[in-house]
Amino acid sequence: MRLATLRTAEGTRAARRDGESYVLLPHSDVSGLLNSGENWLEAAAAADGERLADAEADFAPVVPHPNKIICLGLNYATHIREMGRDTPRYPTLFAKYDGSLIGAHDPITLPKVSDTVDWEAELAFVIGRAARHVPKSDALGYVAGYSVANDVTVREYQRRTREFLAGKTFEGTTPIGPELVTADEFGGKEPDLEIRCEVDGEVMQHSRTSDLLFGIADIVAYVSGIITLLPGDVICTGTPGGVGDGRDPKVYLKEGQTLRTVVEGLGETVNVCVREARV
Amino acid sequence: MRLATLRTAEGTRAARRDGESYVLLPHSDVSGLLNSGENWLEAAAAADGERLADAEADFAPVVPHPNKIICLGLNYATHIREMGRDTPRYPTLFAKYDGSLIGAHDPITLPKVSDTVDWEAELAFVIGRAARHVPKSDALGYVAGYSVANDVTVREYQRRTREFLAGKTFEGTTPIGPELVTADEFGGKEPDLEIRCEVDGEVMQHSRTSDLLFGIADIVAYVSGIITLLPGDVICTGTPGGVGDGRDPKVYLKEGQTLRTVVEGLGETVNVCVREARV
Repeated sequence: MRLATLRTAEGTRAARRDGESYVLLPHSDVSGLLNSGENWLEAAAAADGERLADAEADFAPVVPHPNKIICLGLNYATHIREMGRDTPRYPTLFAKYDGSLIGAHDPITLPKVSDTVDWEAELAFVIGRAARHVPKSDALGYVAGYSVANDVTVREYQRRTREFLAGKTFEGTTPIGPELVTADEFGGKEPDLEIRCEVDGEVMQHSRTSDLLFGIADIVAYVSGIITLLPGDVICTGTPGGVGDGRDPKVYLKEGQTLRTVVEGLGETVNVCVREARV
Repeated sequence: MRLATLRTAEGTRAARRDGESYVLLPHSDVSGLLNSGENWLEAAAAADGERLADAEADFAPVVPHPNKIICLGLNYATHIREMGRDTPRYPTLFAKYDGSLIGAHDPITLPKVSDTVDWEAELAFVIGRAARHVPKSDALGYVAGYSVANDVTVREYQRRTREFLAGKTFEGTTPIGPELVTADEFGGKEPDLEIRCEVDGEVMQHSRTSDLLFGIADIVAYVSGIITLLPGDVICTGTPGGVGDGRDPKVYLKEGQTLRTVVEGLGETVNVCVREARV
């Protein structure tokens, strides 16, 4: 099943894809559905009613207001090498705030305060039920599904201090969507999917999610030992090699460029870079 | 004016202190009040109705579910020295999730996975209206008020990677409250308050908030250049010297100890350390 959060004249609505259209669900977004009870999957599958044609879909971030957005750094060997870091023993965790999220086709805001905006194509996943002290062997059962994200980063702010957060949470920079593909579509296994990032059609990153150093189950088990994961929580799993900052010379996103992020079977986000007004 | 979020049989309620009692407000917490409109201060001052005696007050975190919890690291010279860091040019920002927050008198959960739990007494402030690209000269006008927090930290997890987040967001570790003292009580100036942290009555940290490297207005201006601050957002301003991890030998919180955090004029949080069951 493929779920989305769509913008309508009355606000956002959760929706289930059904062929060439979306069936609107009674929840205001995908998180509302995931928090509606343990049987959310069956309820969403059975729902019928008002529809929107595929071509009319205006995608909000697939989960617009998660309780938590948890991101992993340094989780592909190729990216660890290009950033000159050592292979970590533990998952590197940092946060974003929901004000940084944008929909699958929304513009990326290049902030007026820096020209060092870089791409980071990522597999994202969303939690489907509360998880606390979950062993790795059970961890995939807490995943609602998978989506596409780009952890767009302002490198200058990322490096101003030893903490990544400032460079990771600029307003209107992080596409996530268009859909959440539910975990049952992957037969209860960790999905091994091709991941690709293009800038104006040029392939910048190209890898497979099976190259993740810490996989989905590792992450759920580790984080749930720290804090309770809640339905709708978004986890971005880290990016493979090929970021602009790892190149010689370094390359950053420019006004008017199109960033395309594709994860096999999940869909793509396509976002035009727009410069914030320099008031 | 002094505001609180109190637990009642029907859930939490915002409240205004009035002498020896609290007047319950129509909002479910202080964030609800702050998001109710620009005139929240006058509305709260004028409200009357159901009351709770001071002695019956059961304090929830003063803002239980902020959109953002933003913390500063390395913001007092004494703490920068004891942690062996250089004086930073920019504010060091990291996040917490709301699952880490506890009320002013709630137990602190010592996690079963680590014995390296440490104190960090902090002045916290809460945003009162949306702030984006705010100049420092206007920044204090966006502050709703001030409160007491302790950024209790699991040092082992803080140091496992280069990112602080994991050690900063353990479930049920961060007291904040008991009250929000509104900014008008400080005449539109940055409050210069004594701050103190005690473990079982022994003074561990003792400083003044005027020693902050980046003050309240600096922080609001800087963060609002990155992302929109929203009413109810919580900002913890950093801790002075005297943490357990900076001592020789290092000292950490033990089961049964009482952590008391006092900020002059704002009140105190008093929290007993309870060990999470090792299942």
